[in-house]
Amino acid sequence: MTAADRAGARPVTTAATIRRLRPSDYGTVIAVIDEWWGGRPMSDMLPRLFFEHFADTSFAADRAGPLAGFLVGFLSQSQPGEAYIHFVGVRPGQRGQGLGRRLYEAFFEAASARGCTVVRAVTAPVNTGSVAFHRRMGFSVEPRQAARDGIPVAADYDGPGRDRVRFVKHLHADEGDGLLRERAMPLRGLPGDPA
Amino acid sequence: MTAADRAGARPVTTAATIRRLRPSDYGTVIAVIDEWWGGRPMSDMLPRLFFEHFADTSFAADRAGPLAGFLVGFLSQSQPGEAYIHFVGVRPGQRGQGLGRRLYEAFFEAASARGCTVVRAVTAPVNTGSVAFHRRMGFSVEPRQAARDGIPVAADYDGPGRDRVRFVKHLHADEGDGLLRERAMPLRGLPGDPA
Repeated sequence: MTAADRAGARPVTTAATIRRLRPSDYGTVIAVIDEWWGGRPMSDMLPRLFFEHFADTSFAADRAGPLAGFLVGFLSQSQPGEAYIHFVGVRPGQRGQGLGRRLYEAFFEAASARGCTVVRAVTAPVNTGSVAFHRRMGFSVEPRQAARDGIPVAADYDGPGRDRVRFVKHLHADEGDGLLRERAMPLRGLPGDPA
Repeated sequence: MTAADRAGARPVTTAATIRRLRPSDYGTVIAVIDEWWGGRPMSDMLPRLFFEHFADTSFAADRAGPLAGFLVGFLSQSQPGEAYIHFVGVRPGQRGQGLGRRLYEAFFEAASARGCTVVRAVTAPVNTGSVAFHRRMGFSVEPRQAARDGIPVAADYDGPGRDRVRFVKHLHADEGDGLLRERAMPLRGLPGDPA
């Protein structure tokens, strides 16, 4: 019996591998991204530059074929000690099996190893699955200005009409230990759209 | 008689100031960006994260009021020695007076001071003004795959149907000297859309 079985998760039939994202993954990701987001046009938010220039803090999950999921993140250049997760996606058929958690943990470990103590991310308030996921991952919502359905949002954060929920997580010195181990707790719901 | 007069440029009646871009500039920029690009929807390509996390290599030009132009650029995190210009815009009524050039020069100086020797940027092939501007600024076009109207483009570079012209410029050790001096050569045409 595996840890996932004990926790009541769907059995993971194929092991996942977390690796660095490569510029050559861009074509695969951009071809499916709108579909992964339920038809929303997402491509403009993910130009190739993130794959070319932030590859060392961005990750891919391979399971049952390449690119079951990916995470694009970077170290803040002008806010020392801060790191930022820009984009994360998991293939629809691969959700609910902890891939989002493992991608985040890989990022926390990479950010911590580079001296970061704070990780930030934002999501659209409509993406309640993403809000719940970030809370499970230990993020707090930063209160600001307005509230929508009980969630504090930064109004017009990414431009007029583009409200965002702002998340922050403080990394602790011992948090990097074993972060890449598979966890028993299953990821329910989709990691969704933190952009 | 000013240097600009001698070169036949429109006289610059008000001095421009180049300064660091601030997170608080985001609202001003995002409110006008689609208009500056002739109505194209550009906001998705410029989330607030660039103003929050890459402020030390991004610049604003103030002239006759705040934000006559701006440049968003960063140091590559995973390609050592490389820097990248993501976005530059000049207010329509302020074009043709060298602001784009001064913003680029400020970026070259900042990148050079941080050990970079290569600067990259991309633009849409339809933006012939931007292609000409980059060539005047000393960028070369990287040949790749296809050609459109004599310009080599990387087909589907930023996703299906999103061809891009790829520019590269090598900074020389002495290039930082006096880069922020006003140049005599006028900037014709708009800096346009390097994203």
